[in-house]
Amino acid sequence: MENLFERFSVNPILRPTSICPSRNDLKIECLLNPGVFRYRDKIGLLLRVAERPKQKEGYLSFPKLNDKGVIEIMEIPKDSPDLDLSDVRVVNYQGEDYLTTMSHLRLVWSTDGVHFSEDKNYPAIFAHDAYTAYGIEDCRVSQIGDTYYLTFSAVSSNGVVVGMKSTKDWLTYQDYGPIFPPHNKDCAIFERKINGRYYALHRPSSPEIGGNYMWISESPDLIHWGNHRCIARTRKDHFDSSRLGAGASPIPTEYGWLSIYHGATENNRYCLGALLLDLNDPTKVIARSQTPIMEPEETYEIEGFFGEVIFTNGHIVRGDELVIYYGAADEVICGAKASIRAILSTLV
Amino acid sequence: MENLFERFSVNPILRPTSICPSRNDLKIECLLNPGVFRYRDKIGLLLRVAERPKQKEGYLSFPKLNDKGVIEIMEIPKDSPDLDLSDVRVVNYQGEDYLTTMSHLRLVWSTDGVHFSEDKNYPAIFAHDAYTAYGIEDCRVSQIGDTYYLTFSAVSSNGVVVGMKSTKDWLTYQDYGPIFPPHNKDCAIFERKINGRYYALHRPSSPEIGGNYMWISESPDLIHWGNHRCIARTRKDHFDSSRLGAGASPIPTEYGWLSIYHGATENNRYCLGALLLDLNDPTKVIARSQTPIMEPEETYEIEGFFGEVIFTNGHIVRGDELVIYYGAADEVICGAKASIRAILSTLV
Repeated sequence: MENLFERFSVNPILRPTSICPSRNDLKIECLLNPGVFRYRDKIGLLLRVAERPKQKEGYLSFPKLNDKGVIEIMEIPKDSPDLDLSDVRVVNYQGEDYLTTMSHLRLVWSTDGVHFSEDKNYPAIFAHDAYTAYGIEDCRVSQIGDTYYLTFSAVSSNGVVVGMKSTKDWLTYQDYGPIFPPHNKDCAIFERKINGRYYALHRPSSPEIGGNYMWISESPDLIHWGNHRCIARTRKDHFDSSRLGAGASPIPTEYGWLSIYHGATENNRYCLGALLLDLNDPTKVIARSQTPIMEPEETYEIEGFFGEVIFTNGHIVRGDELVIYYGAADEVICGAKASIRAILSTLV
Repeated sequence: MENLFERFSVNPILRPTSICPSRNDLKIECLLNPGVFRYRDKIGLLLRVAERPKQKEGYLSFPKLNDKGVIEIMEIPKDSPDLDLSDVRVVNYQGEDYLTTMSHLRLVWSTDGVHFSEDKNYPAIFAHDAYTAYGIEDCRVSQIGDTYYLTFSAVSSNGVVVGMKSTKDWLTYQDYGPIFPPHNKDCAIFERKINGRYYALHRPSSPEIGGNYMWISESPDLIHWGNHRCIARTRKDHFDSSRLGAGASPIPTEYGWLSIYHGATENNRYCLGALLLDLNDPTKVIARSQTPIMEPEETYEIEGFFGEVIFTNGHIVRGDELVIYYGAADEVICGAKASIRAILSTLV
């Protein structure tokens, strides 16, 4: 594979030590998978900040939002018979699943698209209800008119749903609750209507029959969704053999909607691919990458909290230039540039 | 438990031998879980008919809809290295999951609510597209005005979704495709709007975190759904410890919406319970059965294709009388009557 993407020379642009934890008793384990947007003369990243309680010897500690809406630290003796760690993805305590980290969304700003810093005027977005009690993850930002729509994984003991919020000023938010029921992630709303309907890509998962496939749905109002169709399935012996999910909002081009997506193997190696969808009917797939358009190569992509991972859910388009921001090795934030024409030339 | 339900003395009212297979090369394995409705002066049942190819020695045969929309029999040598039977729920062949039976929906009619027979003027509903390629299961019927809305599990290699059709005459149907993405079943639409919105109960499932819980959602048009909320979770050491799902459309009573639902244990014992939801805000649960309101007791409920199963998704209300129709032991169709006041008295 020729290198379609040119990585930022200063990568990683943000690390867990780049910002402060939200509380003194929490430690930032990872910065991941930022949503990206333009606001006034700045580029904003909406970072996923995964925090973990400082661990005490002999105890396993993990965070959860309690019924009063306050983040509480659960401290369980490691030898507790009620603790089950047999599933590496979750902590099971007294029959209920928990996550070891809790994620919130933090805003950082830049004028050059490379150097980002916080502005304390803009609040972070925290777990706040029964559907976000284990955290908020991997936010996509779609701008429609002067409103930004944030779609994210909302995680709780009820399951993983797609939650949505909107804002015009990044100071106050309207919350819409779950817009897709469990198990669903990786929701990217198209930034304009097509034939009078809104569209979104999303990734439901099935415990039996089916898989981790990409679907597209329609909506009259961005809140209620229907006419669900499966448009991309996992492919045996490909980079997307185990799961795939949309990146940021698809990019309109003269050849169709270009969706940059992530695909993962059974070994959890995450690469990027591209899908081209019909401009007038985005349920029709025109083309799809046979091989990755970007894959883990740099040390910061191969080694980290979870190695061999490139995951993007945010980008900026400047004419033919696509600047993606991505989570590398589930630990740090990076950037890379590519020519949209060059990506399309691999597809059509 | 006192016996709230009086079973029909003639149970089972329908068996696999009561109707003819849809094709000569198929055999009816089970009649299951009918949707129920009134049309003109008759009661109609929309049976789930599960058929299986006649098996040849040394081969495993199963049905699927092919790309041309025709049901095709897959015949695989039992010693094929591409055949994986390690998951009892499905047949895995060349990496893809299939079902051993394919279900369609068959209409039968009655004037007394006990003796049902086919009327060949009314067509059956078969698998017909990419989302029903493995069959159509467990249909609920909700009547709104003079239109009947059919919600069913549509099964295919894309996953299990809730499909919807509507009809006014049981002769011609409008199809709406999937109204809930995978993995989802047990969808019951309320038969009137509440505060200007349609509501539906449904049962998404999660491969990790969460479970097989009952959710409620809102819609402006019955096609697009949002504002998803979880209203009933599985309960440890109860009859609904492993999964639960709505029966037919909730019944409006002076105390609230009464939903008869099924709950199952880890051993797949299916009983019935009841939920009472607030009349003006059905996302609020007023009461829920601590113990089953009906459980497998009769031989035809305990022994069969899959024993210890009572599953209802259809009923008729006549004043205080509730007549449920149910699948027993995943093989035969039965009926039973109860007083709605008596059920409510166990709840409030």
